[in-house]
Amino acid sequence: MNKNAYAPTPPMGWNSYDYYDTTVTEAEVRANARYMADHLKQYGWEYIVVDIEWYAKKAGSMRSLFQYIPFSELEMDEYSRLLPDPERFPSSAGGNGFRPLADYIHSLGLKFGIHIMRGIPRIAAHSHTKVLGSALGAERIADPAMICGWNPDMYGVRNIPEGQAYYDSLIALYASWGVDYIKCDDICNTNMHKNPYAASHEVEMLSKAIEKCGRPIVLSLSPGPALIEKAWHYEKYANMWRITDDFWDSWDLLKDMFQRCELWQNHVLEGCYPDCDMLPVGSLGKGFGEERLTRFTYEEQKTMMTLWCLFGSPLMLGAELTKLDDTTLSLLTNEKVLAMLPPDVRPHQIMRTDTYATWYEKDSVTGQTYLALFNLSDAPGDITLSLADADLFGDSLTLEELWTNNEKIVTDGSLTERLMAHSCALYCSR
Amino acid sequence: MNKNAYAPTPPMGWNSYDYYDTTVTEAEVRANARYMADHLKQYGWEYIVVDIEWYAKKAGSMRSLFQYIPFSELEMDEYSRLLPDPERFPSSAGGNGFRPLADYIHSLGLKFGIHIMRGIPRIAAHSHTKVLGSALGAERIADPAMICGWNPDMYGVRNIPEGQAYYDSLIALYASWGVDYIKCDDICNTNMHKNPYAASHEVEMLSKAIEKCGRPIVLSLSPGPALIEKAWHYEKYANMWRITDDFWDSWDLLKDMFQRCELWQNHVLEGCYPDCDMLPVGSLGKGFGEERLTRFTYEEQKTMMTLWCLFGSPLMLGAELTKLDDTTLSLLTNEKVLAMLPPDVRPHQIMRTDTYATWYEKDSVTGQTYLALFNLSDAPGDITLSLADADLFGDSLTLEELWTNNEKIVTDGSLTERLMAHSCALYCSR
Amino acid sequence: MNKNAYAPTPPMGWNSYDYYDTTVTEAEVRANARYMADHLKQYGWEYIVVDIEWYAKKAGSMRSLFQYIPFSELEMDEYSRLLPDPERFPSSAGGNGFRPLADYIHSLGLKFGIHIMRGIPRIAAHSHTKVLGSALGAERIADPAMICGWNPDMYGVRNIPEGQAYYDSLIALYASWGVDYIKCDDICNTNMHKNPYAASHEVEMLSKAIEKCGRPIVLSLSPGPALIEKAWHYEKYANMWRITDDFWDSWDLLKDMFQRCELWQNHVLEGCYPDCDMLPVGSLGKGFGEERLTRFTYEEQKTMMTLWCLFGSPLMLGAELTKLDDTTLSLLTNEKVLAMLPPDVRPHQIMRTDTYATWYEKDSVTGQTYLALFNLSDAPGDITLSLADADLFGDSLTLEELWTNNEKIVTDGSLTERLMAHSCALYCSR
Amino acid sequence: MNKNAYAPTPPMGWNSYDYYDTTVTEAEVRANARYMADHLKQYGWEYIVVDIEWYAKKAGSMRSLFQYIPFSELEMDEYSRLLPDPERFPSSAGGNGFRPLADYIHSLGLKFGIHIMRGIPRIAAHSHTKVLGSALGAERIADPAMICGWNPDMYGVRNIPEGQAYYDSLIALYASWGVDYIKCDDICNTNMHKNPYAASHEVEMLSKAIEKCGRPIVLSLSPGPALIEKAWHYEKYANMWRITDDFWDSWDLLKDMFQRCELWQNHVLEGCYPDCDMLPVGSLGKGFGEERLTRFTYEEQKTMMTLWCLFGSPLMLGAELTKLDDTTLSLLTNEKVLAMLPPDVRPHQIMRTDTYATWYEKDSVTGQTYLALFNLSDAPGDITLSLADADLFGDSLTLEELWTNNEKIVTDGSLTERLMAHSCALYCSR
Repeated sequence: MNKNAYAPTPPMGWNSYDYYDTTVTEAEVRANARYMADHLKQYGWEYIVVDIEWYAKKAGSMRSLFQYIPFSELEMDEYSRLLPDPERFPSSAGGNGFRPLADYIHSLGLKFGIHIMRGIPRIAAHSHTKVLGSALGAERIADPAMICGWNPDMYGVRNIPEGQAYYDSLIALYASWGVDYIKCDDICNTNMHKNPYAASHEVEMLSKAIEKCGRPIVLSLSPGPALIEKAWHYEKYANMWRITDDFWDSWDLLKDMFQRCELWQNHVLEGCYPDCDMLPVGSLGKGFGEERLTRFTYEEQKTMMTLWCLFGSPLMLGAELTKLDDTTLSLLTNEKVLAMLPPDVRPHQIMRTDTYATWYEKDSVTGQTYLALFNLSDAPGDITLSLADADLFGDSLTLEELWTNNEKIVTDGSLTERLMAHSCALYCSR
Repeated sequence: MNKNAYAPTPPMGWNSYDYYDTTVTEAEVRANARYMADHLKQYGWEYIVVDIEWYAKKAGSMRSLFQYIPFSELEMDEYSRLLPDPERFPSSAGGNGFRPLADYIHSLGLKFGIHIMRGIPRIAAHSHTKVLGSALGAERIADPAMICGWNPDMYGVRNIPEGQAYYDSLIALYASWGVDYIKCDDICNTNMHKNPYAASHEVEMLSKAIEKCGRPIVLSLSPGPALIEKAWHYEKYANMWRITDDFWDSWDLLKDMFQRCELWQNHVLEGCYPDCDMLPVGSLGKGFGEERLTRFTYEEQKTMMTLWCLFGSPLMLGAELTKLDDTTLSLLTNEKVLAMLPPDVRPHQIMRTDTYATWYEKDSVTGQTYLALFNLSDAPGDITLSLADADLFGDSLTLEELWTNNEKIVTDGSLTERLMAHSCALYCSR
Repeated sequence: MNKNAYAPTPPMGWNSYDYYDTTVTEAEVRANARYMADHLKQYGWEYIVVDIEWYAKKAGSMRSLFQYIPFSELEMDEYSRLLPDPERFPSSAGGNGFRPLADYIHSLGLKFGIHIMRGIPRIAAHSHTKVLGSALGAERIADPAMICGWNPDMYGVRNIPEGQAYYDSLIALYASWGVDYIKCDDICNTNMHKNPYAASHEVEMLSKAIEKCGRPIVLSLSPGPALIEKAWHYEKYANMWRITDDFWDSWDLLKDMFQRCELWQNHVLEGCYPDCDMLPVGSLGKGFGEERLTRFTYEEQKTMMTLWCLFGSPLMLGAELTKLDDTTLSLLTNEKVLAMLPPDVRPHQIMRTDTYATWYEKDSVTGQTYLALFNLSDAPGDITLSLADADLFGDSLTLEELWTNNEKIVTDGSLTERLMAHSCALYCSR
Repeated sequence: MNKNAYAPTPPMGWNSYDYYDTTVTEAEVRANARYMADHLKQYGWEYIVVDIEWYAKKAGSMRSLFQYIPFSELEMDEYSRLLPDPERFPSSAGGNGFRPLADYIHSLGLKFGIHIMRGIPRIAAHSHTKVLGSALGAERIADPAMICGWNPDMYGVRNIPEGQAYYDSLIALYASWGVDYIKCDDICNTNMHKNPYAASHEVEMLSKAIEKCGRPIVLSLSPGPALIEKAWHYEKYANMWRITDDFWDSWDLLKDMFQRCELWQNHVLEGCYPDCDMLPVGSLGKGFGEERLTRFTYEEQKTMMTLWCLFGSPLMLGAELTKLDDTTLSLLTNEKVLAMLPPDVRPHQIMRTDTYATWYEKDSVTGQTYLALFNLSDAPGDITLSLADADLFGDSLTLEELWTNNEKIVTDGSLTERLMAHSCALYCSR
């Protein structure tokens, strides 16, 4: 089956990282899933993703010293495969793994995703544990020269058949639990290495393992920035790949995303999504020891949602959902804006300078045209675009602004909008 | 008008450079045009392009010392615009410029193109000559810090309104002659500068000047390699841009083109063509003092034609057309192969290693699928591709090889072909 | 004769640039020379250097648009050699060149220097003027692809015998005027080119021309940063070379110099001086349209003088000398500090962090040890060094601080000093 | 005590690596030491160095798969310190460590050195073993993100007081054995990391640990290339540092060394030696599975010895000493050539091109001048140098060639020698 069919539109969901860091518990995951089913599912939001170190005992307990405690205990089976920590995920006890949690999430009509670190546990290599389907143990499959620069858990996997066997056994286990989405980390840009795509063979192994497992699992690659010259490889083997390092609620990062979307705009295709990373809206940061509301202003959040949707990025919520306020919720449930997400609606940057950006896109199915104007400067200002630059010929046009529902009539071939600093306007032709 | 409409399919034509270097004469251009009208036009070949230094007196006369004689005399009008050297282009005398030659070419049902160097003549700046439509003279429009690293004729144009006036006056003159195609050099990658796209404002100026001139002139940018991170800019302002430095008849350069096509494959769109450069086939090199037949073997030429057509590159012939042999001609007139050129037929690399490459593409209009297998190694070998990798599901398929017209039946989901070194096979589904 | 003998200690003098930019006149040069003879000569200051574009008519007259007016008139002889503009340098009229001015400066017991731009005038190349001692004209000696990125006057000289003839004729002329020092610009780091030492052959040509001219002319190379991997080449052919781009009165640039001195400390040798650039003290900036007193605080000026002297950099005053105040004068005439300049006193950095630096040096003739402590942070703080790190064994020592003449007694092997932000202390063992 | 006093001249010795790789045994070390005492000691050769993985069980036993077996057993004490493998070093059994072997070597009048990998054993971190003098265990001292790119044994040590305690305990143990020389690897250029001097804090820790241990231990840093911009740091903390990656018996590597010596020539000082790496002469390669005589010709070996001695590099023999032939021995025992080694004899490159290099140096004690001419091309040719370029003024001079003892009389200020390809001549003034 074609992996592009696993994600015909950009995945939309929730991810535990921005709020919980390494500490999320089963109860918290279930609560967020219930919220999604009740309030977001109808708009297309469907993935619930448990992020990093669900297998680590005492994860987060030395937060002032380490984000990831080095050389500490991990829950692992006899075949070098990591399992959920039963202390935080009680239903996983007794060899259940994530199956009970996945079942619950599926019962809500949602999909279940997990984060994994590329590779095989370091402790497996040092303990010479077995690998299912392989005559060689973990000590021969692990590559001692391939580590992650920021997390101490794994060694990279050698490009040998036994390495493929390890990944096959891993994905088969996770598929048996009902996993629908895997976010693999330290793989899209292995940034401590001189060759930042040193793990490309592990991307291929994961892709093959998914093909073999018989379950359509969406494959998401982190962290970024992805390498534009490897675009063809990501497109062939994965469903989404991060085009940025971790994105947080800072204007500098948001402004920077415009240059990244500019670079990747020709690579948004069915089943292939350059990924702008999670949306740091609402309540964030508890696991990092600094619980807070997003630092983005309302205008910045609108700009972010407009860019992500226009571009066709996956949408993953960083917020603790149970604490979502109505204003934030309204930003996430604007159906006219979300209608730009499908890859039939192809993005085109018209112009970008240090102070503004303009984009258009056309829905190849409906013929609808969208126009977006962004004020990237720190002061209010007029942003203009010529209709001809958006392939709209003729001088007059009636438009609707999609965040306000206001009508706008253009009569001279040119659209101008006065915008607050960091704000945007998004029009749809009628 | 949308500049993409000027070139709905990749331009196909002939260029004087590979055979004549700087020395081509009007009679030689006319002879090549006649050949094209008689033998190639029916297959889509239509552009006749006069390449570099048609304005330079005595061009080529000091070839052992200089390709371009520095500080020598150029034919220039009072407004700092270069004109054809009347000694080599007799019909241009008396202020006719290239109009008589263009008229002749148009009379054959062909289109006429010229090469220009970015900028304003150095001698105009040092002589303080006038610029039409500008209160400032050439000395104020020329940027003394912007030169070409390999040709001594011009200074770059400053990003000021008077600079636009210069380009407007230049393109208006060339449009009045009937020019259909401009290949602007030292602009796509200004490789002597730390910023290799230092002339981006001159690309915009040329584009605006063409828009104003009222004639649909195809804009081609040289030399390469173009910068992938500027793809959006080339796409917005030009019709084609070189993705490589000068391409010649060497296997190393041809093999290298596979990596370049890999990089640019998502950027082949209507009116926007990443350009693999001229086809150095047939008789070459006279103006360089080494007249010869192409050093490419027949297999290599087939590989080149297959890649260029598959990818959707413009096709510009380097050969002296009047000396074309039948074998070469047959490579250039295979209609089934040329049918892959239009941008509706989108290229997809399946895999590339140091020893082979495989591609497929689908014609979005006809539904036709093409499969190409290339042996990039220096020894014969079997190249294989899985039909599933080309989005062809089901195990059996009947194919036609387009260079031999042989039928090939696939029964096990996988296509294997034994190929000579540097050779290829190109299949079309039936 | 060994070129190192031309400058047995780092040259000390005055340069017109920081105050006058391109505009200095003969009268102003004479006034500064008289001041030097009266107040500074006794401390070792002896060079009077006329900086850039003394040959350019109307230099500085379009300062709001250009520092260097492009394509404007230069005073040049029939052999493509630039001469002083007689309007600004009246005594040069009638073919005298700088000889009368040089004579005057010599009469004061001082030495005379000029700035030149690498290469041959662009206008000579475009006009095909002659070159003394060469069968080829300027159009064949000039390299059209070698220009300066920031000044429009010259083309680089080709690496051919006729190029050497040009430099021989140029230096012979300047030697005949009595020039003692040449600061050649656009040569040490040709920063617009990919190869930043693309003019290395012109350094060799200048060196040979000086050898042939029979006059000991100090050769100074600009601008920086010089390339550490070419240190051997600068050492062999020049007397001083800039280790930094233009240095001005900003703390960031001064702080940055510590890293540069760290890098070059092993390269300070007799007749070979890595050059920290001019001292922007006193009155500055008139020619730049912003006459002002230096922006450096007194503490920063002390830090600068200490570092330059400790390191053994040439010392060139940027100030308009006739406006020097007593405090600045005292910084420039501290004989105990200036005693560190000779290359027998070799610099050694002990440690450098973002907030402090410590150095020591030993006079190999007198055995004297110097210790310097610098506070590079923006707040007051204690800076410490261990005597053992300065090769001073034993715990107790009596020191003299050279800016205050205070005595300091060390008893525990370690020297600590509380220093204001950006300040320093400089000790000499007794 | 000043660490520079530990090595007043460049260390000369033997190292087990080039012949034995990881497999050397105690008996083999003893045999080489006896040979040195008998045949080489009188010429200054004195160090016997046991190279990599003397602590690894079964080292070399999987040579077709791994140079260093990953995740295998290492001999280690309870304090995370590696000990000799008693199987290969029988006298080390029972807690003796290398003391008995060191004693034997000292009894021959020689000095004893060992190789160590930077850091703390990975297995110690994963096993949470203790560290002497530290409240924290190995799991807290090891940095999980700092590994060697080519050897799987260690983790880097964090820059914390407990890290210093580990190094103190390690060096104290090794000093107690009588170690005179430590070659620390993966420290001079940690080439897998983006910051290639990421281990600079471990250099400082080692230096401090040596200072504390009370024994003068020479500190040698590997691998190269060292970073020229960190020269001051190596000089302050170490005695020698590699300026090249592993050097072997290939002309390309030897030719390349000329550029490295050019770069580092100003950094050869008492106790501070840029290191050209081992001399791959005689019998080599047994442990690598390809026992052979050096691939260097006699002329190339002469060139190597001349450059290493002229430059002042440490000299470490790679040959199995017991198999040395007389010709090789004669190259290693030429006292007139070895007399150039001390740092009073400072190297100066005169010129280097792709085809030749010339150097001179002066003994600041005796006043003796040396002149070296190298033919770097692949054909015989005349190499010339001007005496003036070597600071030898006057036209006539009598010289002695030090490899042939031939006399050479210069009469015209210029020395020319016809040299075979890759050969050299070395003269001494009389």
